[in-house]
Amino acid sequence: MDTHLRYDQPKQTVTAGEVIFGSPEVIVMAGPCAVEGRETYLSSARALKRMGVRVLRGGAYKPRTSPYSFAGLGREGLKILAEAREATGLAVVTEVLDPRDVELVAAHADILQVGSRNMQNFALLHEVGQCGHPVMLKRGMAATCEEWLLAAEHIRAAGNDQIILCERGIRTFENQTRNTLDLSAVPVLKELAPYPVVVDPSHACGRSELVGAMARAAVAVGADALLIEVHPDPAHALSDGRQSLDEPEFAKLLQELRRIAKAVGRLIRSEEHGQGIDDRSLKINQGVANDDY
Amino acid sequence: MDTHLRYDQPKQTVTAGEVIFGSPEVIVMAGPCAVEGRETYLSSARALKRMGVRVLRGGAYKPRTSPYSFAGLGREGLKILAEAREATGLAVVTEVLDPRDVELVAAHADILQVGSRNMQNFALLHEVGQCGHPVMLKRGMAATCEEWLLAAEHIRAAGNDQIILCERGIRTFENQTRNTLDLSAVPVLKELAPYPVVVDPSHACGRSELVGAMARAAVAVGADALLIEVHPDPAHALSDGRQSLDEPEFAKLLQELRRIAKAVGRLIRSEEHGQGIDDRSLKINQGVANDDY
Amino acid sequence: MDTHLRYDQPKQTVTAGEVIFGSPEVIVMAGPCAVEGRETYLSSARALKRMGVRVLRGGAYKPRTSPYSFAGLGREGLKILAEAREATGLAVVTEVLDPRDVELVAAHADILQVGSRNMQNFALLHEVGQCGHPVMLKRGMAATCEEWLLAAEHIRAAGNDQIILCERGIRTFENQTRNTLDLSAVPVLKELAPYPVVVDPSHACGRSELVGAMARAAVAVGADALLIEVHPDPAHALSDGRQSLDEPEFAKLLQELRRIAKAVGRLIRSEEHGQGIDDRSLKINQGVANDDY
Amino acid sequence: MDTHLRYDQPKQTVTAGEVIFGSPEVIVMAGPCAVEGRETYLSSARALKRMGVRVLRGGAYKPRTSPYSFAGLGREGLKILAEAREATGLAVVTEVLDPRDVELVAAHADILQVGSRNMQNFALLHEVGQCGHPVMLKRGMAATCEEWLLAAEHIRAAGNDQIILCERGIRTFENQTRNTLDLSAVPVLKELAPYPVVVDPSHACGRSELVGAMARAAVAVGADALLIEVHPDPAHALSDGRQSLDEPEFAKLLQELRRIAKAVGRLIRSEEHGQGIDDRSLKINQGVANDDY
Repeated sequence: MDTHLRYDQPKQTVTAGEVIFGSPEVIVMAGPCAVEGRETYLSSARALKRMGVRVLRGGAYKPRTSPYSFAGLGREGLKILAEAREATGLAVVTEVLDPRDVELVAAHADILQVGSRNMQNFALLHEVGQCGHPVMLKRGMAATCEEWLLAAEHIRAAGNDQIILCERGIRTFENQTRNTLDLSAVPVLKELAPYPVVVDPSHACGRSELVGAMARAAVAVGADALLIEVHPDPAHALSDGRQSLDEPEFAKLLQELRRIAKAVGRLIRSEEHGQGIDDRSLKINQGVANDDY
Repeated sequence: MDTHLRYDQPKQTVTAGEVIFGSPEVIVMAGPCAVEGRETYLSSARALKRMGVRVLRGGAYKPRTSPYSFAGLGREGLKILAEAREATGLAVVTEVLDPRDVELVAAHADILQVGSRNMQNFALLHEVGQCGHPVMLKRGMAATCEEWLLAAEHIRAAGNDQIILCERGIRTFENQTRNTLDLSAVPVLKELAPYPVVVDPSHACGRSELVGAMARAAVAVGADALLIEVHPDPAHALSDGRQSLDEPEFAKLLQELRRIAKAVGRLIRSEEHGQGIDDRSLKINQGVANDDY
Repeated sequence: MDTHLRYDQPKQTVTAGEVIFGSPEVIVMAGPCAVEGRETYLSSARALKRMGVRVLRGGAYKPRTSPYSFAGLGREGLKILAEAREATGLAVVTEVLDPRDVELVAAHADILQVGSRNMQNFALLHEVGQCGHPVMLKRGMAATCEEWLLAAEHIRAAGNDQIILCERGIRTFENQTRNTLDLSAVPVLKELAPYPVVVDPSHACGRSELVGAMARAAVAVGADALLIEVHPDPAHALSDGRQSLDEPEFAKLLQELRRIAKAVGRLIRSEEHGQGIDDRSLKINQGVANDDY
Repeated sequence: MDTHLRYDQPKQTVTAGEVIFGSPEVIVMAGPCAVEGRETYLSSARALKRMGVRVLRGGAYKPRTSPYSFAGLGREGLKILAEAREATGLAVVTEVLDPRDVELVAAHADILQVGSRNMQNFALLHEVGQCGHPVMLKRGMAATCEEWLLAAEHIRAAGNDQIILCERGIRTFENQTRNTLDLSAVPVLKELAPYPVVVDPSHACGRSELVGAMARAAVAVGADALLIEVHPDPAHALSDGRQSLDEPEFAKLLQELRRIAKAVGRLIRSEEHGQGIDDRSLKINQGVANDDY
């Protein structure tokens, strides 16, 4: 890259609530694509917490290719997210689409997501760069890592270096998956920039059958966090049900992921860790990949 | 397409000032990439008018991949554009990046441009859908025609069907050009939607040497308008000088384009047409392509 | 390009029978995708000749994605091509797939086509590099111009510089067309290499409705020849009927193309030119594009 | 897929020498890009065997984008491969480029590789379909899984179902890697077809720094084998040194991969297994992924 990006440090962590991205712990973020209603979301949030999930996801504002698709509950959805945060003690991540909504969203969520379609929405990047919260920046659909880091630079230039990058698949000619998850972006970004890297296998694959295999690979490749769609009843989800795991599938997957995390010298929490765990107690003494997180 | 887009009519024109897009006339829109200063812009605007240009272009707000590149003169640039409009009587097109700027930009320009990076910036699309001015929507860098039309639908759903589509090249593996101009998008869009279609060979090619050949092809393929970067001194342009024609090159190209327009049954105005020309006097009686505009 | 390709001359012509590629004449090559039978092919060949076609196309060996599709008549198809050549006096172009068939195909055809899927089939390139006939090298589905010229270099390194390059569309995300015709490749290749450039709008578009517009654009952009699929009864073609023009559509298109050719200072022959025309009599004195062929 | 591919069984193994692809064992295939000389290759082969490698790789015929690059030792290279096979008892895989060489290559190697550029070289596919040896078919640079399976079908239709598919990266816009390794192809192919799937992280990444992370991910995602470039002195390799691991790096990587293989219920052999190991003794009783190989 001849973009002359300069960082003060080779690696940095990003903290949201009790969660530290970029530590030996692989953070699991999960929830439905969209917040669809209060009762379901709260009960789902509690179930996810019991499984070891550390950050809740859920869209209040949904970017939709067609203006006639369900676009989220908006302000009402934000309130539900804040209530779920209160009820579970978990951090919450949700997407913001409009620079005029940044303040409102920041009042209800811990991490602000900028979606793929907005990776180069510079007005929005500037605004989240001033919001004082961590920002999770998803990769644009056909963006290179360089363009992605330059988009992050718009956030940093506005004053916010609490940035998490989220690989969610790029557009290719393959049509068996919705996008092609570019796992090589994980080591590439680690080389180039200090930011923690999240992998979202759900949006990349577009089909729940493939999510498990790609989540396993994401842990093995060195991702700092996973973002996985889990829905209590995928067949009736208002958006993206096709790619959502149900809760038993997700619980089984977490068992598999813990084994791989251990094999690469990292850790995925389980319920019994509780909230009070002391991060320094994580023993990382035999990992294969412990230079990489 | 299974998107069930429904239009009231197979074809519609869009009017900006005295210019009608979607008529037998092929509209020439030209100017520098960015408005760089008052004197230069005004003198350039007058020169372009003398050559037959019908719409002035010029960026006041420039989206830039890197936050450290020249980002336009902003409000000051808008004033210069409005002054050039006043001085020449020509219509003006300029880009808007932020939904909060739509009203301001609409007060200074005739046509609002939504750029490639913002094709799916739904907050912006919604806002320009309420501005009362024609909107020129550029194709996203890796967007299909279907996604592009659905983005246009966000504008129409907000109440504005004065939409012009602008093909500006898509990302491919070819690296001799900045993007690959997809001229087949012109007949494809004509088949699917009623909107006039503009072709921008300058951004697609990224090199002035190729602009002439692609502009000729654009007229032959049935484009309703061309958007061409012309700079009085390309070597010293603050942005995109590499792809700008100088004025003598542009004048020569216009001669070529007029011959091709005539061969396909259309017309590109020249200076002597004056502003008072009666569009109904255009005789389209031997055109090869007169089913297509 | 850092490939250091060196050519002795900036431009060269390629001769096949009475046809000269790279001259002011834009050569029209036409015929069905595959040779399907003797009677139909011969009658079609005569009809095409009457319309002004200069080179007959037709596949005897068809590369097919699935092994269960019609793969051409093989040796029998070659005989029919040779008979059509005899009967009409026109040159014939046909594809060769296997290095072991090069000699046989060269005995029946004037120009050997290497198809997209074989652009980097180096054994085949080496063999056609020794056949003593002009070779038409189609661009690979995702190839850059640089890779394409390096593939041509394999032919030249084997001893044959009678090379014609054929742009036939590249793979992109757009799905309204089978491929995306990259017309900017024409001026790019003219800049970089001395070879004549053919454009094949039929394979690129994949739908006959779009072929006319793209053929017009190809002439305007500076193509030296067009390769167009024409079938006496497209609805019953054994392969690629969807993209074939019928004869009346093709005749109408030729009229349009002649007008554009004239507008850019070139010529497309019509029936009355006869075979004996003296190429030197072509007057190219008012062309807009006469630096470009 | 509407290609109606029908397989007799959901899963099949492919045997080469003592190696079984598609078993619980993850097969490690390694060696230099090209066979460069007898002494080096033999000594390298012995070293690789000691580390647990099960199949030796090495190109005798190298497809090269430019005709002026090193194209392999040809027949001499084949002899060296056969000698290495003799000396080590390991199976050998090498590429064949020309249908006329298939018999010769089959006389010296256990597995015939058809490279990316030849994925749709139907003459070659037909010929290896009759050679009686397992064929490793690499994915084309811009091929979909469907096109890849249809290419495999050309081999099967010619009589050979001993097919191994090798994912080696697809072309995308990302330029930090040579290609983008599409690991989702592994579960996709497992769903659609019975063939074992190999992953080649070396060609995909194009840089040795990234190979380790992607190899780890490949094991986690369920690959049946890995193809890794290892060179005794990468800095002086005649081709692709930039992406080759040296022997100590490779030995370290194998340790990491064994841990991940175990975590997903599979096994990668180490030196002490010896050649006489009974495959049935592999205990797969706690694997997370043991439905997937």
